Amino acid sequence: MVHPFLSLVGAGPGDPELITLKAINTIRLADVILHDALANESLLAYAAPTAKIQFVGKRKGEHSMTQEEINQLIVQYALEFGHVVRLKGGDPFVFGRATEEIEAAKKAGIPFVVIPGITSAIAVPAAELIPVTSRGIAESFWVITGTNQAGELSADLQLAVQSNATIVLLMAVGKLAEIVQLYLQHHKSNTPIAIIQNGTKQHKKKVVGTISNILDLAEAASIAHPAVIVIGQVVALNLDVSIDLITDIPSTKA
Amino acid sequence: MVHPFLSLVGAGPGDPELITLKAINTIRLADVILHDALANESLLAYAAPTAKIQFVGKRKGEHSMTQEEINQLIVQYALEFGHVVRLKGGDPFVFGRATEEIEAAKKAGIPFVVIPGITSAIAVPAAELIPVTSRGIAESFWVITGTNQAGELSADLQLAVQSNATIVLLMAVGKLAEIVQLYLQHHKSNTPIAIIQNGTKQHKKKVVGTISNILDLAEAASIAHPAVIVIGQVVALNLDVSIDLITDIPSTKA
Repeated sequence: MVHPFLSLVGAGPGDPELITLKAINTIRLADVILHDALANESLLAYAAPTAKIQFVGKRKGEHSMTQEEINQLIVQYALEFGHVVRLKGGDPFVFGRATEEIEAAKKAGIPFVVIPGITSAIAVPAAELIPVTSRGIAESFWVITGTNQAGELSADLQLAVQSNATIVLLMAVGKLAEIVQLYLQHHKSNTPIAIIQNGTKQHKKKVVGTISNILDLAEAASIAHPAVIVIGQVVALNLDVSIDLITDIPSTKA
Repeated sequence: MVHPFLSLVGAGPGDPELITLKAINTIRLADVILHDALANESLLAYAAPTAKIQFVGKRKGEHSMTQEEINQLIVQYALEFGHVVRLKGGDPFVFGRATEEIEAAKKAGIPFVVIPGITSAIAVPAAELIPVTSRGIAESFWVITGTNQAGELSADLQLAVQSNATIVLLMAVGKLAEIVQLYLQHHKSNTPIAIIQNGTKQHKKKVVGTISNILDLAEAASIAHPAVIVIGQVVALNLDVSIDLITDIPSTKA
């Protein structure tokens, strides 16, 4: 007898050690795993040998499934095999289309849970020692999508550019010229900005500058998707240490 | 010979399973652990038996250490004992005073790392099935402190109240009347709002309503610190399932 169940699981920002215990324990119990391009594939090693594993993300030059097709697959597999784990990069509720998958499960009477993950919006800047908040410098941070339902930069950025918040933009690297234009219109050419591609992963790339020079820097470094954009004074904090201080976490006792 | 080192480690929102592998592996290597009231004490079980463990948080009726005293303790213990793990509730860079501790370490020439944690700003609403973003409903979320350097509600809320972002307020439950007043001034009495105390933990309490009735609801439920406030249309999504659908994650195969 099959007990249909859906777990929406956050896989974290890329580094396979930045997944939670709860996520690992849930992957272990999966009958089916449907995973994204952003979820680190090494996490699939936690799955039972009998688990059915299917990639449902987007890859260059391949036909990718629509959200509606993924929703249908979740329901079909849950009814056929039991416990479906939907493994998503970052956190399911941060631009993860989780609401739509939950609503499909609810409609089919399939119970579900959501296991949060470390979002790249916070962890990717953190890995570069850029804090999204810092006492006396940033009392808030605002995470905004560069690709909303209409495929456009969220209109929320119109207000964000006027704020003192740290602004974090996801899925926005293709809209960089538009973002820069908006900051220039508000006479904010000196605002610090960083763009981090493949944060917390191998082949990481980073550019740091100001609104006035970031387009040139990003072009020179060929920055591309997936990337996190951080805008605000926290970018200029320079918490990063000089090379002689950098070391690994001590692996043995002193 | 002692090798001084500082790890700033996020302990997550309260549920001891919502900590990362990297955080656990780091706690295991600690010579000293300095922990907060918000970090779940059960996580201290990962420490080596020889590790020195000290509470540096705030507890009612007790003298609590100042940030400056904590900074000094970090440096002193790192130089004396080696690897100091500063275990903080949530994420170190989300209102965690991490910048100040890093600057103290840098000044003393002590190398450091930051291990992100699941922030309560996202995970506490998620545990109540309130997504901070949802396609077509919220294209951004803005996390704001209710207690800034001056002990006040961040002025960023003046702009936030005009936005379409999901607003998440931390350390703000004592400023609820002020927050409600601001939304009423902007004719937003119908905006949905939820307050969750002790989210993801035992003794959780939750009230859900609108700006117009939340003060009464919070008073009736005696909502107190620590709590997360979420404001926006996502609160009214009602992803929550009826009681007959609720179940635990399947612990055995179908």
